[in-house]
Amino acid sequence: MLQNNLLIQAAMGQPTSRTPVWLMRQAGRILKEYRQVREKAGSFINLVKNPELAAEVTIQPVDILGVDAAIIFSDILVIPEAMGLPYEMEERKGPVFPSVIQSKSDVENLRIAEAHDLHYVLDAIRITKKELNNRVPLIGFAGAPFTLLAYMVEGGGSKTFSKAKKLLYTHPEIAHALLEKITQSTINYLKGQVEAGANLVQVFDSWAGILSPEQYQEFSLAYIEKICKAIPEVPKTVFAKGAFFARERMNSLSCQVVGLDWNMDIEESKKMLSNKVLQGNLDPCALYGSYDAVKKETINMLNQFGKHTHIANLGHGLYPDTDPDKVRCFIDTVKEYSVTLH
Amino acid sequence: MLQNNLLIQAAMGQPTSRTPVWLMRQAGRILKEYRQVREKAGSFINLVKNPELAAEVTIQPVDILGVDAAIIFSDILVIPEAMGLPYEMEERKGPVFPSVIQSKSDVENLRIAEAHDLHYVLDAIRITKKELNNRVPLIGFAGAPFTLLAYMVEGGGSKTFSKAKKLLYTHPEIAHALLEKITQSTINYLKGQVEAGANLVQVFDSWAGILSPEQYQEFSLAYIEKICKAIPEVPKTVFAKGAFFARERMNSLSCQVVGLDWNMDIEESKKMLSNKVLQGNLDPCALYGSYDAVKKETINMLNQFGKHTHIANLGHGLYPDTDPDKVRCFIDTVKEYSVTLH
Repeated sequence: MLQNNLLIQAAMGQPTSRTPVWLMRQAGRILKEYRQVREKAGSFINLVKNPELAAEVTIQPVDILGVDAAIIFSDILVIPEAMGLPYEMEERKGPVFPSVIQSKSDVENLRIAEAHDLHYVLDAIRITKKELNNRVPLIGFAGAPFTLLAYMVEGGGSKTFSKAKKLLYTHPEIAHALLEKITQSTINYLKGQVEAGANLVQVFDSWAGILSPEQYQEFSLAYIEKICKAIPEVPKTVFAKGAFFARERMNSLSCQVVGLDWNMDIEESKKMLSNKVLQGNLDPCALYGSYDAVKKETINMLNQFGKHTHIANLGHGLYPDTDPDKVRCFIDTVKEYSVTLH
Repeated sequence: MLQNNLLIQAAMGQPTSRTPVWLMRQAGRILKEYRQVREKAGSFINLVKNPELAAEVTIQPVDILGVDAAIIFSDILVIPEAMGLPYEMEERKGPVFPSVIQSKSDVENLRIAEAHDLHYVLDAIRITKKELNNRVPLIGFAGAPFTLLAYMVEGGGSKTFSKAKKLLYTHPEIAHALLEKITQSTINYLKGQVEAGANLVQVFDSWAGILSPEQYQEFSLAYIEKICKAIPEVPKTVFAKGAFFARERMNSLSCQVVGLDWNMDIEESKKMLSNKVLQGNLDPCALYGSYDAVKKETINMLNQFGKHTHIANLGHGLYPDTDPDKVRCFIDTVKEYSVTLH
């Protein structure tokens, strides 16, 4: 059905003619076309909640950059909001939760989100699928339960997330009750995304790196595994930024693909994650280099992944001041050079 | 000479009756006695520049908490200032540099700091040594050249340090020229600290974790090695937060001690760093737990280090809202329990 099915084939470990490529945060501030739509929407959250506009920015990088997949334009914090904990997006500061989770009763007052609570995302997926017209696959996504807990307890971004981590040390039972509710909500949400047409789903554990190895297993990986098991219909990618220490354990997760950040040595990761397709992992800052440097770094990355099934991407989201022409250079280099590895 | 010489003995790999213990940021906001002196000084930078008051807060944790070492109260950013790039400390925001390094001529305009440019730190060390009266050793310190570059180019703290990293990708020759000047300044400074009485020096590479393994070797470790080699008089500790990927390489650094953060698995680190004394690595958030939990986590950590020569510490600086009684519980547990391991 899909005209370009490279991403799904690679995710399923099937042979492909070349390495598929997409970029985390490919729909966003690097594109002037995005900024125009964002301005029309009035605010980031308005854009997330407007299915037509969200679909439009989702498709932009397919048309403009030539990536092998679209990823639905949305935000991981739609789940806390659907559970009854709304957030605001402050310019230059990021997300802020006016109320935070502090007690057992705060957790009890949250609802488990149902797919229809996120109807605006599901509508955006349906519109995107229709407009993509099977050109490339569409990726759905959600935040990992621990990353959502971190925001819901801390109240916003933080260097240390010490309030969120304090909860794990002082009231682990409240943390687990919250993680369970988030997990159920996320399963409902991702099932809805798959029904609406998502061809693969990615779980983003953005704050994985703040936990110790033991805590990461207990408070994060156990819930990610529940989510992966509950969504058998499509391939799943888990990207746990900073969780270098969990790679061996992630080799037995019920997902097909594991994302690497640029700190993670590729050779070592191939050994630790021998059962998994690997995604990543160019440093987003490498795209600040000259065209020659971008090509060289991209080829170097491709050679290191070598014959291991690989989905080319960055090791983190694109930074907003990246030149779209350098992004195109990255994508074109993957498309051209990776043929020699297949 | 030193009545309690446990830290230096352990750092030199000599047998000790128990594990020595101190804490990163032990002199600071957790102590009401510190906050009183800080208020008297008027500002953080005033406190850093006042040798008598800096000595006073340096000694407080020895008296109040019972740690096995003092660490001179100062700031890693005194070096950029001494090189001609002053900074301000904004409440709740951290350090801000009104001017930043952007070009070759910006680097050329910086001077190489001499020890006497940092006379206020050296005076603080001399006063501290006199007042400590050989009760415990005094630790001197400096920031690693890459971490200082990160602030000097970025202009302040950042989640991604993308401006600083952009320089590495676009103008590596400017980055190296800057790193060389910082390294020479740091060597002069640490030599001055040792002459003034520091018994051990620690190099803090706070932003090590933002680099790829290859970049870390080129832009950070090479300069740390130069510093270690230039200070043969005292034992040296290198703490590279987030540089899990560099542990094998750090095993051949010219330092005696390597600090671990709480993400780094202890068993794995003992193997990778078999030549080194290890320092760390309790999660600072573990001190938010109950007394029983603090004891349990501390004993668990001590057992994991086992017979490997170990300096007990946290895996990061103390967080300001930590209860000093919990810190004392950590220290007392190390002192009591570690006897059984020696």
